[in-house]
Amino acid sequence: YNHMYMPVSFNGPAEDYTNLLNGVQLWDVGCERQVQIKGPDAEALSQFLTPRNIKKCSKGQAMYAPFLDFKGGFINDPVMLKIDEDCYWFSLADGDALLWVQGLATGYKFEVDIFEPDVSPLQVQGPNSTKLMTKVFGDWVNDLGFYRFKEVNHKGIPMIISRMGYSKELCFELFLQDRSKGDKLWEILWQAGQDLNISAGSPNIILRLEGGILSYLADMDRTNNPYEVGLGWIVDLEQEDDFIGKEALREINFNGPSKKLMGVEVSGEPITTFNEEHWPVLSDGKIVGSMNALVYSPRLDKNIGYTILDIEYAKSGKEITISSPEKELIATVVDLPWLKKD
Amino acid sequence: YNHMYMPVSFNGPAEDYTNLLNGVQLWDVGCERQVQIKGPDAEALSQFLTPRNIKKCSKGQAMYAPFLDFKGGFINDPVMLKIDEDCYWFSLADGDALLWVQGLATGYKFEVDIFEPDVSPLQVQGPNSTKLMTKVFGDWVNDLGFYRFKEVNHKGIPMIISRMGYSKELCFELFLQDRSKGDKLWEILWQAGQDLNISAGSPNIILRLEGGILSYLADMDRTNNPYEVGLGWIVDLEQEDDFIGKEALREINFNGPSKKLMGVEVSGEPITTFNEEHWPVLSDGKIVGSMNALVYSPRLDKNIGYTILDIEYAKSGKEITISSPEKELIATVVDLPWLKKD
Repeated sequence: YNHMYMPVSFNGPAEDYTNLLNGVQLWDVGCERQVQIKGPDAEALSQFLTPRNIKKCSKGQAMYAPFLDFKGGFINDPVMLKIDEDCYWFSLADGDALLWVQGLATGYKFEVDIFEPDVSPLQVQGPNSTKLMTKVFGDWVNDLGFYRFKEVNHKGIPMIISRMGYSKELCFELFLQDRSKGDKLWEILWQAGQDLNISAGSPNIILRLEGGILSYLADMDRTNNPYEVGLGWIVDLEQEDDFIGKEALREINFNGPSKKLMGVEVSGEPITTFNEEHWPVLSDGKIVGSMNALVYSPRLDKNIGYTILDIEYAKSGKEITISSPEKELIATVVDLPWLKKD
Repeated sequence: YNHMYMPVSFNGPAEDYTNLLNGVQLWDVGCERQVQIKGPDAEALSQFLTPRNIKKCSKGQAMYAPFLDFKGGFINDPVMLKIDEDCYWFSLADGDALLWVQGLATGYKFEVDIFEPDVSPLQVQGPNSTKLMTKVFGDWVNDLGFYRFKEVNHKGIPMIISRMGYSKELCFELFLQDRSKGDKLWEILWQAGQDLNISAGSPNIILRLEGGILSYLADMDRTNNPYEVGLGWIVDLEQEDDFIGKEALREINFNGPSKKLMGVEVSGEPITTFNEEHWPVLSDGKIVGSMNALVYSPRLDKNIGYTILDIEYAKSGKEITISSPEKELIATVVDLPWLKKD
């Protein structure tokens, strides 16, 4: 993930999931590298890179702000942090989007410095996460708004602490600003969490699907546009400023997308096999889409998944057939998400 | 590697190495993705991307043509194939250089189409590789010049066959142009190689070091320029055309690089541990560089490695100390490479 190793499981997705829901969990997501854009044109370039209207973002605030290409396809889906009026971070999914930003900025002659700072994020997830965070960092954490952040130096560890993270559970993200202090930060949290049922985890497929959260390259990629995957809300076509893909998105929005990401529920026994590849989806023997992710949710007691379907099949209630390598699975199309943010 | 799985070993590096030297070996390097640049400005953009003088390259010829950034640091180190007068492929090392090229091309308004074609390379390596290639594809393979290629359709499998590859041994690279035919191509070669001592392998660290070949991100990265790693010969500062990094490279060339990649030989028993991280290199107790790769070469009966040293220590014959996690290793600095191309 971004040329780094990433812990992807400690006790398997099901047990990691249960541990998280019964306490607090630390996720080492240091592989989420940042693109820092700083300089007089930092706002202008940041706006050019994403269809969101970033002029609405204040200093100390974050926004989900995907990068699209000129056809409207996803290049990456970072979260943007407005560090200062002339400084933005984009916290990346897997892919060297730094090269995209640097290539564009040079050609278009934006006056900015762009580089990857020494920042290694750590996520704190689960119902006990506020207890852990206030215990370690103080009561001010209670007042941190959603998608807001604050610069902190705790026992010589410089970081940005935000209330956000890659799940629908209560969560925080700590943007550590000195890689040599990663072990120290982990140990401080780990010790403080001993009476809070702390565990180690990682971005979890069950939580992701339950919450309708998308993972770049797993659930969508450069062949998809925001309208297809339920992210039409990030596109602000009304803003005056130009952004990459605006023209293409205007047309897609006008005509409507030709396919759409939907939920599916598969009846029967809990699914235990994990799909490494997308599986074909059929209706009346015809291929009408692909099944991108499928897992058993203990909380919902259902097999749930994501599928991208030709638009005429992307309707809640439709019956489809998923052609897994082992057997055909009967599934029902449903709207997303299953669970909303706490 | 480029968001794909890549086979990195079959029987361990030492046995894979022996198998290769005693027959012919297939390497699945499908993860070496291509950036295709096509259109009226294809040559102009390709030249802008690399310090090599690509005007010297003919149709049907290939060139090692690294991409640098504006400071002269490596973005990637692809091999370029001139497919046609208005069409170039860049066969990538690990990294989404497609984004770099697309970002630059848009900003600078080059008139080109840039995308990743359906191309999955396979390498055929070792002393019996010409025998295998002529047996399968015909005697014309004997006449294929070094770094030359030819388009071929063999039993319905479209590909480009070149005489090159990632080793100093006799080798060929087959750029398969239809991913669905990968198994078929492999089987044809595998069957034909049964009396040629055929085996499966992968880019091999022993071969790499013996031949003085560099692996992007392992041996050098964006913090290195060509002059530091023995690749000054790729930079043509005399050409009229501008290319990315030209100004920075002119200055580095004028002042001389501040550090340099050199070979090292470590006396004693064969090294069996593989360094996952770079190890510090010391001289008189002071850190003077880093040790990037180290392995035992059976052919040379020596422990050989790469180190990047401060320029005043980058001299053949110098004694240095490598601080491995287990113990200090005494080493002698030597010039590269140990073995030259057959």
